[in-house]
Amino acid sequence: MSFDRTLEDIAAQAWAVMEEIGRLTGTKEEGITRPCYGEGEQIAAEKVTDFARSLGLELEPDRFGNLHGVVPGADPSAKAIMTGSHLDSVPGGGNYDGLAGVMASLATAAAALRDGGNRRSIRAVAMRGEESPWFGTAYVGSRMMLGHSTLADLGGLPRFDTGRPLQEHLDELSYASAPVMPISRETVAGFFELHIEQGPLLTAKNLPVGVATDIRGNTRYPEARCLGEYGHSAALPRAYRHDAVLAVAELALEFERFWEEAERHDPSCVFTMGKFGTDPSTHAMTKVPGEVRFSFNVGSIREEVIAQADALLSRLLDSITQRRGVRFEMGPRFGSLPSRLDPALIAMVEESAKAIGHDALRLATVGHDAAMFHQAGIPASVMLVRNANGSHNPRESMAEADFVLGARVLGGAVMLAASG
Amino acid sequence: MSFDRTLEDIAAQAWAVMEEIGRLTGTKEEGITRPCYGEGEQIAAEKVTDFARSLGLELEPDRFGNLHGVVPGADPSAKAIMTGSHLDSVPGGGNYDGLAGVMASLATAAAALRDGGNRRSIRAVAMRGEESPWFGTAYVGSRMMLGHSTLADLGGLPRFDTGRPLQEHLDELSYASAPVMPISRETVAGFFELHIEQGPLLTAKNLPVGVATDIRGNTRYPEARCLGEYGHSAALPRAYRHDAVLAVAELALEFERFWEEAERHDPSCVFTMGKFGTDPSTHAMTKVPGEVRFSFNVGSIREEVIAQADALLSRLLDSITQRRGVRFEMGPRFGSLPSRLDPALIAMVEESAKAIGHDALRLATVGHDAAMFHQAGIPASVMLVRNANGSHNPRESMAEADFVLGARVLGGAVMLAASG
Repeated sequence: MSFDRTLEDIAAQAWAVMEEIGRLTGTKEEGITRPCYGEGEQIAAEKVTDFARSLGLELEPDRFGNLHGVVPGADPSAKAIMTGSHLDSVPGGGNYDGLAGVMASLATAAAALRDGGNRRSIRAVAMRGEESPWFGTAYVGSRMMLGHSTLADLGGLPRFDTGRPLQEHLDELSYASAPVMPISRETVAGFFELHIEQGPLLTAKNLPVGVATDIRGNTRYPEARCLGEYGHSAALPRAYRHDAVLAVAELALEFERFWEEAERHDPSCVFTMGKFGTDPSTHAMTKVPGEVRFSFNVGSIREEVIAQADALLSRLLDSITQRRGVRFEMGPRFGSLPSRLDPALIAMVEESAKAIGHDALRLATVGHDAAMFHQAGIPASVMLVRNANGSHNPRESMAEADFVLGARVLGGAVMLAASG
Repeated sequence: MSFDRTLEDIAAQAWAVMEEIGRLTGTKEEGITRPCYGEGEQIAAEKVTDFARSLGLELEPDRFGNLHGVVPGADPSAKAIMTGSHLDSVPGGGNYDGLAGVMASLATAAAALRDGGNRRSIRAVAMRGEESPWFGTAYVGSRMMLGHSTLADLGGLPRFDTGRPLQEHLDELSYASAPVMPISRETVAGFFELHIEQGPLLTAKNLPVGVATDIRGNTRYPEARCLGEYGHSAALPRAYRHDAVLAVAELALEFERFWEEAERHDPSCVFTMGKFGTDPSTHAMTKVPGEVRFSFNVGSIREEVIAQADALLSRLLDSITQRRGVRFEMGPRFGSLPSRLDPALIAMVEESAKAIGHDALRLATVGHDAAMFHQAGIPASVMLVRNANGSHNPRESMAEADFVLGARVLGGAVMLAASG
């Protein structure tokens, strides 16, 4: 049987296991909850270990709880090809964000084990805590695996609701004697991640798969404030007001205009003010609003668009402050530069898709675990599978046929890389 | 001694009592708290009763706890002139909002008792619960006194924090056997209220007193919602978004533009979106905001400006809904028509001010207890005294000299009315 045919069969089994994990870690109404180093994530870890074993692939944990399944290659001195994604989910999220990539990578490794003939070894990996809102930081498993952070850095992070540190949650899972795997640019030639799109473009264009060309950079202020002055809504004429709602509304609409303009030459540009709130303990219908807390988030794959956004923000804060007599306290800025993903790996995904009759749509993407590999100097690639109803919500959805097709595209690309 | 000289002396004593009541019912830092039928309001009631008695004026409570002090007139068949304001305050408010009008009216009545010679009787009144956030409704004392509402209507209203009904709070004060005073257009020829301005115009124009020409009408939606759709802040291009923050921001700025335009011929026009909030349990920097709760509040003394605001709101809700794919649930509308205050009473305030060398600035105002008299068909007038730092906050402030001057203007106007 051909590798692709074998993979198609195994991917159908992987789909069934994924649905079972979904039933064990959530409900249709409440959605899926698999917190980093928590119960749901561990249920998924055990189920994928059993599934891999049933296909002859033993998964071995590393010290951080990531699970590795290795298919040896013909040339033991060649760098490996890695593929994988994350086991965890946001609270009340969907079943496929992360887990679909884990299942497709295990199916790929299992098919290679059976029908491979790969020169390089193939290492499938199920990672921990990519979302990780429990500990307020993302990429927990891949960051430590790739050496960007250590357990000393992250072990003390308190779970946001109970205060219990990350280290204790990890200790409960008994990986303290597991090895730190040697994952680096010295040992790994490339990383492929399959992920749901999380957006509507593949659905809108009626295409099942896409390939990411770039990881968006961004300029972000999670906890900004605008301070005006409270006043009597009837007794205070316009000229005497310092209205924080109107000030932040102006900022929002000016950035919407910027975005509209930028989109003409940069469809990757996004702008979101996801948080916008007057103070419920002080505000009133009959008071001029004296304070607004808000978040600010601009992303693009083009460095100059991010720079333009930063410059516009600075100009607008000045001019709004002047005109409206308010004050902005923007709080910490979290920025990252856009990254171009590896052209050779992109070409392999495109070739693999074409081989089974599909064009992969070129898209920009957010980071995913692939961003940690990219930052570690390992060529990285993200391929995207069509999904309905967005992500991070219980209505997130994926068709079995799209998953199987995605797994075949991933597997084909991994085999191309592993044979090179 | 002339009436004005007597009043000036008594007003200075009234100021001292008012300062004492302030010390007994709040602090500089936390502000003043005199809840309707609560401890602070009752302290004020007892202190003003003692003060009036010290001047020979016996205050008599009515069934609703409002305190009346009557100075008989030469013509017992003539309708009375009333003057007064409210004893209560918002929580953490200022000392002068309400109480200054009570003290000035008692000073006026006490001076008339000594040096009056009024044809009509003069009835000073200290009213209850004009602010009354405890029970979620304003004008509690004046509404019942004037028959707009009965104890059966309001007695069941629960205190917002404890749920204890208004009736129980009132019963504790033992006014159940007090009379319902016959206050109506059949018995009262006019009502004068002195109140702090609550805005900055008198300060800005360096004038100590003003007179209200109109009570603003308004169109208000205290609990409106805009429903968009949550989505991934990076994966969702602009064309697929239904962003509730941008939708409500557009509504806000369009109304700011309307207001700017309206102000050219209607300086009384005001617009406030005092509440504007995404849902803290759901929102995130990385999510397109799917819901905003907001309040909407437009006021003007011109009926056609309110009608224009209503028409613009309706057009904007349609067009924003269309363009942005969001939905508005505006909730209940609370509207009131603007009212022109009595020209004869306005003229008396102006004449009284001029007699002691001042021009009263003509202003629009919010309702105050005077609005309840106006609604009962009793000619009503509000005179405003300069205050610093707005109102409904601990920094609210008033100069003793302005209070004494305001009391003299009030007293002069009351005497003009009582002699006519």
